[in-house]
Amino acid sequence: MSEDRVYTAAIVVIGNEILSGRTQDLNVSFIGERLAAQGIRLHEVRIVRDTFDAIADAVNALRAEHDYVFTTGGIGPTHDDITSEAIARAFGIPFGRNPEAEAILRAYYNPADITEARMSMADTPEGAELIDNPVSRAPGFRVENVYVLPGVPSILQVMFEGLSGSLAGGKPVVSKSVAANLPEGKLAEPLRAVQDEHPNVEIGSYPFFKDGKLGASLVMRSPDAAEIDVVAEKVRGLIRDLGGTPIEE
Amino acid sequence: MSEDRVYTAAIVVIGNEILSGRTQDLNVSFIGERLAAQGIRLHEVRIVRDTFDAIADAVNALRAEHDYVFTTGGIGPTHDDITSEAIARAFGIPFGRNPEAEAILRAYYNPADITEARMSMADTPEGAELIDNPVSRAPGFRVENVYVLPGVPSILQVMFEGLSGSLAGGKPVVSKSVAANLPEGKLAEPLRAVQDEHPNVEIGSYPFFKDGKLGASLVMRSPDAAEIDVVAEKVRGLIRDLGGTPIEE
Repeated sequence: MSEDRVYTAAIVVIGNEILSGRTQDLNVSFIGERLAAQGIRLHEVRIVRDTFDAIADAVNALRAEHDYVFTTGGIGPTHDDITSEAIARAFGIPFGRNPEAEAILRAYYNPADITEARMSMADTPEGAELIDNPVSRAPGFRVENVYVLPGVPSILQVMFEGLSGSLAGGKPVVSKSVAANLPEGKLAEPLRAVQDEHPNVEIGSYPFFKDGKLGASLVMRSPDAAEIDVVAEKVRGLIRDLGGTPIEE
Repeated sequence: MSEDRVYTAAIVVIGNEILSGRTQDLNVSFIGERLAAQGIRLHEVRIVRDTFDAIADAVNALRAEHDYVFTTGGIGPTHDDITSEAIARAFGIPFGRNPEAEAILRAYYNPADITEARMSMADTPEGAELIDNPVSRAPGFRVENVYVLPGVPSILQVMFEGLSGSLAGGKPVVSKSVAANLPEGKLAEPLRAVQDEHPNVEIGSYPFFKDGKLGASLVMRSPDAAEIDVVAEKVRGLIRDLGGTPIEE
């Protein structure tokens, strides 16, 4: 663990079902929040189609730029599950049956339920390190800084939690959020002044539209909890000065 | 309108709040679904940080590859709203006050409420075409094939619907979904056979984990509704053959 440098991560979401609008992704927000707690900042997400090129290109672009890349989806037994082979292609390494993964699946299924499709979930890039799946057994895997995880949120979450402690990170980023019943147009100028006074605290302003009125959530993020408290107090003060009411979120 | 070629689109989601896990994005699924109905396929999404380089790089990569790029977020009046200037930088064109946008804002606000921060929402890349915002007036804009929209879902949705009819697309992609109370490992082999018989229908298998049991949603997508009906009937049949019950979704 180093508190000195900034650790960054990216996610590649594999899934035509997300792009078609049929399914709402829930994994990005889960992973983003958990990474922040471990001092790792999620800097980019790409949602790509289920094609070898789309997956490999995204993984290769992002693994060169970030400490960690997580992929979600496409590691099941059906014809559209091509993530594992796409990762092998991205790294240019052979793809085939992983003996350790095969043993896990053979121990889990009744012999009558062992199909070639199911055993295909034991195929990984050569030399991949398995990631344990305590829910439905079919493992994820890691190749260098790329972590390959399933798309089903309940399973992904358990597997991701299992990685905790194995990821090197910096000082956790903490956040505080204060909502204002005022439009951003009123808040903008004093808020910029507070941001200028505290360059180490990232202040985000996120408008919302509720009951026909515009308001804004003002979110402060930094590894320095004490400075966040100072900034939050200034933000509450500027909301009151403008005739509004700060609401803790 | 041409039915012959495939129209594709990408989205750039601008927002540290999505990456931190604080906010759940809702715009991707909305836009993805609406584009499909207009015969435009959403092929990629990038969620990037609020920095000039991250926004401009993503926009430039995607606008070269797709018919349409939509950006969401970062066009409000606060210090962290840098999307409009980032788009100008991406295109290498000057950025400044748009007279038409300025007139819209001046007509909307009481003179006492006109602040420099609010008027900054009238700054666009030179020559941008405005996109009407009937909700809170501050317009979006278009430069070539890049459409710049706000992040607040209720406002984005109204503005996006306003674009309908102005986007050229192909034949709408329709879909049908049949759920199976069977794990993918059982479905995989007969499902692959159906996929091989119908290469023009994209069949996706999306596992779910419910009440301790694995099931799968089998989703068929194609511009050809009649062929989807044929495939859906085969899918229902293979589920029954495996001892399961097809559930219409």
